[in-house]
Amino acid sequence: MSPTSTRPVAIVANARFYVGPELCRHLARRGFDLVAGDASEDLVHEVIALGATIVSVAGASRLTADSCRGLVSTAFERFGRLDSAVMFSGEIVTGSFVNSDIDDLRKVMVGCVEEPYHFLRAVTPALVAANGGQILVITSASGARPTPGAPLYSAARAGATMLVKNVASEVASHGVQVNAVGTNFMDFPAFLAASGADDPAVRAKLESRIPMRRLGTMEEFASFCMVFLDGSSRFTTGQFVAYAGGWA
Amino acid sequence: MSPTSTRPVAIVANARFYVGPELCRHLARRGFDLVAGDASEDLVHEVIALGATIVSVAGASRLTADSCRGLVSTAFERFGRLDSAVMFSGEIVTGSFVNSDIDDLRKVMVGCVEEPYHFLRAVTPALVAANGGQILVITSASGARPTPGAPLYSAARAGATMLVKNVASEVASHGVQVNAVGTNFMDFPAFLAASGADDPAVRAKLESRIPMRRLGTMEEFASFCMVFLDGSSRFTTGQFVAYAGGWA
Amino acid sequence: MSPTSTRPVAIVANARFYVGPELCRHLARRGFDLVAGDASEDLVHEVIALGATIVSVAGASRLTADSCRGLVSTAFERFGRLDSAVMFSGEIVTGSFVNSDIDDLRKVMVGCVEEPYHFLRAVTPALVAANGGQILVITSASGARPTPGAPLYSAARAGATMLVKNVASEVASHGVQVNAVGTNFMDFPAFLAASGADDPAVRAKLESRIPMRRLGTMEEFASFCMVFLDGSSRFTTGQFVAYAGGWA
Amino acid sequence: MSPTSTRPVAIVANARFYVGPELCRHLARRGFDLVAGDASEDLVHEVIALGATIVSVAGASRLTADSCRGLVSTAFERFGRLDSAVMFSGEIVTGSFVNSDIDDLRKVMVGCVEEPYHFLRAVTPALVAANGGQILVITSASGARPTPGAPLYSAARAGATMLVKNVASEVASHGVQVNAVGTNFMDFPAFLAASGADDPAVRAKLESRIPMRRLGTMEEFASFCMVFLDGSSRFTTGQFVAYAGGWA
Repeated sequence: MSPTSTRPVAIVANARFYVGPELCRHLARRGFDLVAGDASEDLVHEVIALGATIVSVAGASRLTADSCRGLVSTAFERFGRLDSAVMFSGEIVTGSFVNSDIDDLRKVMVGCVEEPYHFLRAVTPALVAANGGQILVITSASGARPTPGAPLYSAARAGATMLVKNVASEVASHGVQVNAVGTNFMDFPAFLAASGADDPAVRAKLESRIPMRRLGTMEEFASFCMVFLDGSSRFTTGQFVAYAGGWA
Repeated sequence: MSPTSTRPVAIVANARFYVGPELCRHLARRGFDLVAGDASEDLVHEVIALGATIVSVAGASRLTADSCRGLVSTAFERFGRLDSAVMFSGEIVTGSFVNSDIDDLRKVMVGCVEEPYHFLRAVTPALVAANGGQILVITSASGARPTPGAPLYSAARAGATMLVKNVASEVASHGVQVNAVGTNFMDFPAFLAASGADDPAVRAKLESRIPMRRLGTMEEFASFCMVFLDGSSRFTTGQFVAYAGGWA
Repeated sequence: MSPTSTRPVAIVANARFYVGPELCRHLARRGFDLVAGDASEDLVHEVIALGATIVSVAGASRLTADSCRGLVSTAFERFGRLDSAVMFSGEIVTGSFVNSDIDDLRKVMVGCVEEPYHFLRAVTPALVAANGGQILVITSASGARPTPGAPLYSAARAGATMLVKNVASEVASHGVQVNAVGTNFMDFPAFLAASGADDPAVRAKLESRIPMRRLGTMEEFASFCMVFLDGSSRFTTGQFVAYAGGWA
Repeated sequence: MSPTSTRPVAIVANARFYVGPELCRHLARRGFDLVAGDASEDLVHEVIALGATIVSVAGASRLTADSCRGLVSTAFERFGRLDSAVMFSGEIVTGSFVNSDIDDLRKVMVGCVEEPYHFLRAVTPALVAANGGQILVITSASGARPTPGAPLYSAARAGATMLVKNVASEVASHGVQVNAVGTNFMDFPAFLAASGADDPAVRAKLESRIPMRRLGTMEEFASFCMVFLDGSSRFTTGQFVAYAGGWA
């Protein structure tokens, strides 16, 4: 184990996709060194230019028990500490409930419940042992309300949210915070493709149904996540907040 | 298929255990004929004495896609109709989150999410086709709040509750109601054994921590369930109600 | 004080309006004697024909501290006991928040929070003294979600729901149950007039926006309320259930 | 009206008490000019030293329709713009429900619902006219769960939370965000006095009952509030977050 770093250290489980790169940039700006799953070379250079050290762990963005333990052990081996940890995952199956089958449910459960489970199971004891720390699980606003066209996904996300609340309750006395933020209507390629919103007319129609009348950006979402990760505010836990333009 | 019965018909997926026998008795008293999973001979005689017809389906209380479809097809083959359907299931793993493993999670998910899924998946289309009907999923009050000592169970139950809300939303326009009731602190042998409350001193201590200061009975719980099953009130759906002595 | 009645006794605070007459009929059928605010002569005759005794208290349907105490004292003076008590009230102000004024808020608060307060304040100690009993507060599903066009009303109803939960928590150990049911889209003259749904075309349009595609009837709603009042099920408290065709 | 300021402008309705001074400091550090109710001279000097302009409005920390309009008009008169607005208020009455009276309820409603109403009523149209902005209402975690010993307060806070959600829903399409954060167990003189926790032994006992085992500080709470005020993240609205050490 290396001597303990003087800078705080965060895990960003998946640094290649979705809000992962922006989370790395924001954490680096706030003085964190990083252990990041599958960070691109460009991102690594960018983060280094912000004054941070980053270790990219190849393959870690696919969250398994092993990959999550690997992220944690990398943090301790390389930096001698861990302060914060953030993950997102998800597997959506769309369509009506009455046309679904059990394999749809199982697939959704793996991506939306088992992956958060693996992550929480690896990072929580490490932060309990460290007498404090911050964990943020990024789920979906679909977990907070019925979601037409994605009933299994909504159910799985609700399960993950309650898992977060239970873990928070279990470790609150150790100073470890565990919170969840759930998104919808975020502007990123996979959502645009899945919703058809890469077509401007479809996008306009979609936006007209979002209370705030637009999609959310990764930059502002990463900024939102910071308050649950950057160590500046350590007195709330077990919370779920929707980040979805007013939809939930 | 037999000629359509003039009496309403209910499925009680599991008639051997927990609130199953009391549900059969209450439904029979309210004029229902029954398709019941694994009803005991004594229960069958009792229900017949109440004026109802009951078909006990051997093995059906273990809820799989096949067994659930079997309950539905039995209803239509024997009675030509289906009006209401009620199930419960559950697999609890106790212990702290930080000592759990993924197999605990999967085991809980099968009992608490997959079994309700199979049941809902089988009965919902049948009631949609019938232009109306009532489904009640009995889960746990643990799905409504963090539950120390049962974090995975609480998470899975929350997932099942949200599944119920999604299915309710999808089929509301067809006049099909789908609701959930979640229990805790019920007086039955498996709970007494699991909590140690078959020892009177342990029971007294447990009861002192329940807001209503006692355990709930199956008789009063079955009575509570009737309003979601007996056809007398058809204008609410997607609801979750805790039945847990004020704990949730 | 009269000798204690052998039949259970319920208060229906307002027997003239909304679900009041149906509550009286349902309770009478289930063996209750009644203390009812402003019951019509026809209703009194009808309830007597069902085998019940009913005392109509003139003016009591306007809920004040005095009128609520009067209902309780009538129950004890006339029957020597009180078992259950149900009320509804409401004052709606529609329109957008940004066009509202403080008097709108105060008016809504009187009808939606102060009236339930007076009722709960009068009946709760009486049932605590009786070592048990059931209280049902009928509010609005608007308390469970933002309600476009009725923001102050929605807020007040949410306050009343939480008041019910607090009172439930305070008296659970005495065996007193306190629950709330919140309606929307009920078929009664004041709603039809307020929503314009006494015009069939407006009603059809309104119904198309209700998930269950119809309005609710007082008969089925009163039936729903019974499980919180009729003494058959005494192990849940502090619950809120929406009765609103799937809207909440 | 003065020429429009190039710096963003925030209202802190009450700058003398509770989290008010820390909110002013944090907003000043993030580049805001301030309109602040009853800022002390020391705070004014401190904020100026941070590079911000601050206008202290005498008497404004008592929130009325007039004082709230005054804060808004001061912002526009002095700076030509308004970007963010934050308020807190509260009036607690402790004791059991069954010993309360209607004046307790009314007092609580004035402090916990009417004051937020006045603030929201004044700032919301100004931000709608500005095509965007951020409003944060600081309430209490008591609004999110029954609170033994403060039943009326809990109910009033729940009403305020739902008011926030309704206003958020009404103005989301204008780019105005309206969120609520609710505290409990914060370390400040009035709480210490009210709870007896200025006695170290009482404080230790109190802290042992808080999941996170300590009180929250104003500094970290103000930091938490920034994400709902500082303009860095504009895609969530209608949210309630508890800031209460895991209690809610």
